[in-house]
Amino acid sequence: MIEASKLDLQLTIRARLYQHLAIDGKENRGLSLTNRLLCCLILFGGAFAIIATEPDAVALSPSLFRIVEIALAIAFSVEYGLRLYAAGESPKYRGLLGRARYALTPLAIVDLVATVPLYFAFLPTDAALLRLFRLVGILRFAKLGRYSRALRLVVAALQSRRFELALSLALGAFVLIVSSTLLYLTEGEAQPDKFGSIPRSLWWSVVTLTTVGYGDVFPVTPLGKVLGAVTAVVGIGLIAMPTGILAAAFSEMFQREQARRKELKPPEVAPESK
Amino acid sequence: MIEASKLDLQLTIRARLYQHLAIDGKENRGLSLTNRLLCCLILFGGAFAIIATEPDAVALSPSLFRIVEIALAIAFSVEYGLRLYAAGESPKYRGLLGRARYALTPLAIVDLVATVPLYFAFLPTDAALLRLFRLVGILRFAKLGRYSRALRLVVAALQSRRFELALSLALGAFVLIVSSTLLYLTEGEAQPDKFGSIPRSLWWSVVTLTTVGYGDVFPVTPLGKVLGAVTAVVGIGLIAMPTGILAAAFSEMFQREQARRKELKPPEVAPESK
Amino acid sequence: MIEASKLDLQLTIRARLYQHLAIDGKENRGLSLTNRLLCCLILFGGAFAIIATEPDAVALSPSLFRIVEIALAIAFSVEYGLRLYAAGESPKYRGLLGRARYALTPLAIVDLVATVPLYFAFLPTDAALLRLFRLVGILRFAKLGRYSRALRLVVAALQSRRFELALSLALGAFVLIVSSTLLYLTEGEAQPDKFGSIPRSLWWSVVTLTTVGYGDVFPVTPLGKVLGAVTAVVGIGLIAMPTGILAAAFSEMFQREQARRKELKPPEVAPESK
Amino acid sequence: MIEASKLDLQLTIRARLYQHLAIDGKENRGLSLTNRLLCCLILFGGAFAIIATEPDAVALSPSLFRIVEIALAIAFSVEYGLRLYAAGESPKYRGLLGRARYALTPLAIVDLVATVPLYFAFLPTDAALLRLFRLVGILRFAKLGRYSRALRLVVAALQSRRFELALSLALGAFVLIVSSTLLYLTEGEAQPDKFGSIPRSLWWSVVTLTTVGYGDVFPVTPLGKVLGAVTAVVGIGLIAMPTGILAAAFSEMFQREQARRKELKPPEVAPESK
Repeated sequence: MIEASKLDLQLTIRARLYQHLAIDGKENRGLSLTNRLLCCLILFGGAFAIIATEPDAVALSPSLFRIVEIALAIAFSVEYGLRLYAAGESPKYRGLLGRARYALTPLAIVDLVATVPLYFAFLPTDAALLRLFRLVGILRFAKLGRYSRALRLVVAALQSRRFELALSLALGAFVLIVSSTLLYLTEGEAQPDKFGSIPRSLWWSVVTLTTVGYGDVFPVTPLGKVLGAVTAVVGIGLIAMPTGILAAAFSEMFQREQARRKELKPPEVAPESK
Repeated sequence: MIEASKLDLQLTIRARLYQHLAIDGKENRGLSLTNRLLCCLILFGGAFAIIATEPDAVALSPSLFRIVEIALAIAFSVEYGLRLYAAGESPKYRGLLGRARYALTPLAIVDLVATVPLYFAFLPTDAALLRLFRLVGILRFAKLGRYSRALRLVVAALQSRRFELALSLALGAFVLIVSSTLLYLTEGEAQPDKFGSIPRSLWWSVVTLTTVGYGDVFPVTPLGKVLGAVTAVVGIGLIAMPTGILAAAFSEMFQREQARRKELKPPEVAPESK
Repeated sequence: MIEASKLDLQLTIRARLYQHLAIDGKENRGLSLTNRLLCCLILFGGAFAIIATEPDAVALSPSLFRIVEIALAIAFSVEYGLRLYAAGESPKYRGLLGRARYALTPLAIVDLVATVPLYFAFLPTDAALLRLFRLVGILRFAKLGRYSRALRLVVAALQSRRFELALSLALGAFVLIVSSTLLYLTEGEAQPDKFGSIPRSLWWSVVTLTTVGYGDVFPVTPLGKVLGAVTAVVGIGLIAMPTGILAAAFSEMFQREQARRKELKPPEVAPESK
Repeated sequence: MIEASKLDLQLTIRARLYQHLAIDGKENRGLSLTNRLLCCLILFGGAFAIIATEPDAVALSPSLFRIVEIALAIAFSVEYGLRLYAAGESPKYRGLLGRARYALTPLAIVDLVATVPLYFAFLPTDAALLRLFRLVGILRFAKLGRYSRALRLVVAALQSRRFELALSLALGAFVLIVSSTLLYLTEGEAQPDKFGSIPRSLWWSVVTLTTVGYGDVFPVTPLGKVLGAVTAVVGIGLIAMPTGILAAAFSEMFQREQARRKELKPPEVAPESK
């Protein structure tokens, strides 16, 4: 009897844990408090890993960085352990073999990688290794993949136009090669280090067609400037194409969603007049 | 009898004042002449506060700047007083307590702040203080909030797609971190002061993904240039997303408005054929 | 009899001239050959006036430039005379008084200005005067206004959304002032010559919000860079707004035009089956 | 009998060859394996021609570059010969005269040009000639024109709005000339080498209106900066126009395609209710 109730209790704990960790909510609204806190922890952990690559920041208090790093690693290790334990609630991952199967799912592997810094914590501090494992910390952002359902809607909108988008990319590549070749021919002699070959000209072409325009490379000969101006104007057209395609895609996605909602909603019955 | 008519007169003045200061017009067309003049005064006051931060401009005639500053402060003080007095027309703000309640509304506080320079006018001229209270003058633009009904329509259009816009922002943040990390790895050694950490690389990433491209930072190694070119091209896609979303939002807002207008308009009756 | 036929002949010439010069064609297709040639002449005349401002080009052959200039002025003078003469075909501009009335129409004044260089041709060559009258030649492009019917369609599309476009401009101005003020506060001390006052910061703000990014001014302090990055991202949104508005406007214009064409076209009658 | 079967065999080979080389597939999906391999070869050949213009890359192993160049030329020559032979399958290009007619089609000429490097292979290696024939190799990308059916859809979408696009280009040219003239007048004296004539100002105008902003030229006088800021803002509007037009064009193209598909599909018959 005691054993049974103990098992019951154990099951209850696992079931509750599973409920807290599970992501059943629709979109981001239905996330449990536990998951919301975990999201914050992941964002903090990733941001911390980014800041930890800045030597000036680490130099302020290396020990603080070390402590936070290990604390984060422990927190993520605990989460990993609990997720592994709770996974048993799902029939798919029951038993030891099931857990092993769970541990090999992409999300579980990402969770494991997030705990990496802990393994290095007790090694003598080696600068290069420290730098490496800190970089691994950025992969923590991948843990957010668990919550990324909403993103898939946008990805679907993009995929519905992948053919048109690929075409505008191909057109862009074509313009890129043509403008690079022309600038190589007109500016190659005046600026051999910047336009002396087509691969060198490509850098200028990309920077101009995307309208970034760093200013490290630009044509100086009159003919080069004319061709450069034409390239810049054509670049506007190239940018307009994917924008136009995406505008149409999002507009259509929205209209479809509206139509679907209308269908789901029963037609409003007009109140019968006396 | 005399007392009553005096009260009547007083009430009439207050009612007239209230009418002149009230904003009942539809959109910007129905603004009273008084409010139009006040709009101009606010725009002038704000612009003046901007120019007053330029030492070269103030140096031309410090006394003129002082006089205009005080004149503006007096004008806004008078407006504040009149608005406080006229507020009594509304049942909500009747009596002394009502006026106190009115004085605590956000718009009334903004009106009060706009008069700040007057309080400093009789203090001995201290450069730092002068600079500070001049800066406060920029807050005068907030007085325009009273007239901003129209802006809310656009805000509504933006809000109807806040989910999609937030998603494209999240996608942008993701690309930002990935490209910063890649550039940090490839360019970090060649340009340690510019790409020596991810936070440092972030500046380059933002400037490239938004296609601003100041040219203070750019990759110099071949691999860095390849990754930089990919980042610039991806940036175009990131810019295309919100543009597409907004294009769809505005298009839909317009169609809805048209449909609403059609419904309001009675169906045109066809002329009866003989 | 002879007089009458002479008058007839004269009338015939004027009527023919009127026909050749008149712009009755639909869009650009229906332009008469004479008008097509005139368009080319105007484009050449305007382009010539642009090139004539380049001292290096003029230095190659000052006499050639002078001759072409005078030839163009004579050609436009002849056109002016012929148009003035042919205007009599229209009842509105009949007789001497009518011609005077015609001469005061904006297009006729523009035509007259295009002949200005001729009046200076016999003056002693004065460099400053030459430079001035050459600049006047650029106004020749305004002669194209006669052919700009098509442009009005686009202007109409823009006007139908002038309210939304004005709002996004106002929103842009608001963001401009906020970002300038913030950068003035954070970067003012580090770069007093570039961010030392709000008017100075405005230049940076415009260059960043429009994503031009010359690179002559950019934040250098960490906080300034963070605010600069936010400004650049907000700039993308500001650019997306008018683009979205215009996309919706052009889409609607096109649909309306299609609907109009459908109405004009009688419904296609299905061929009767035997 | 033997002769006949030999002829049969020959015909079979030619027919099979024709099948392998022909492009009958819908869009890119139906391409035969042979054509897929040829596409890869063309892409490799074109990319190789680009890299071969980079002296640093060639210097690594000039002989390797020479060998790959000749191998590619032989491969394309073989393809050319086979296409010429297989062309006989089509009644249009039968016989010697037919082959000559085939050889003069644009695609066949492009195929011939792709083999050019072979003709130079046995000449003594002359640096200038080598550079020239390597450049010719870039024309190999034109061979992809054979597979570009899909691109024509996008071109059709662009052509359906060529009138609006031409208008926005004309508007752009107008703004370009106006802003160049204004900057020439305001900045001409301060920076004579950059704004000293309208053609010189044009470079700045294009770079600003397209929001490229290299930073090699920018206004420095206060009035020039104000005009430059206005130009940059107007540039946003100019970019928004073609983007809006294209967004509408792609949206319409998509809706038309959906409508066409619906028509092709027979209406789904509703299951008869009992």
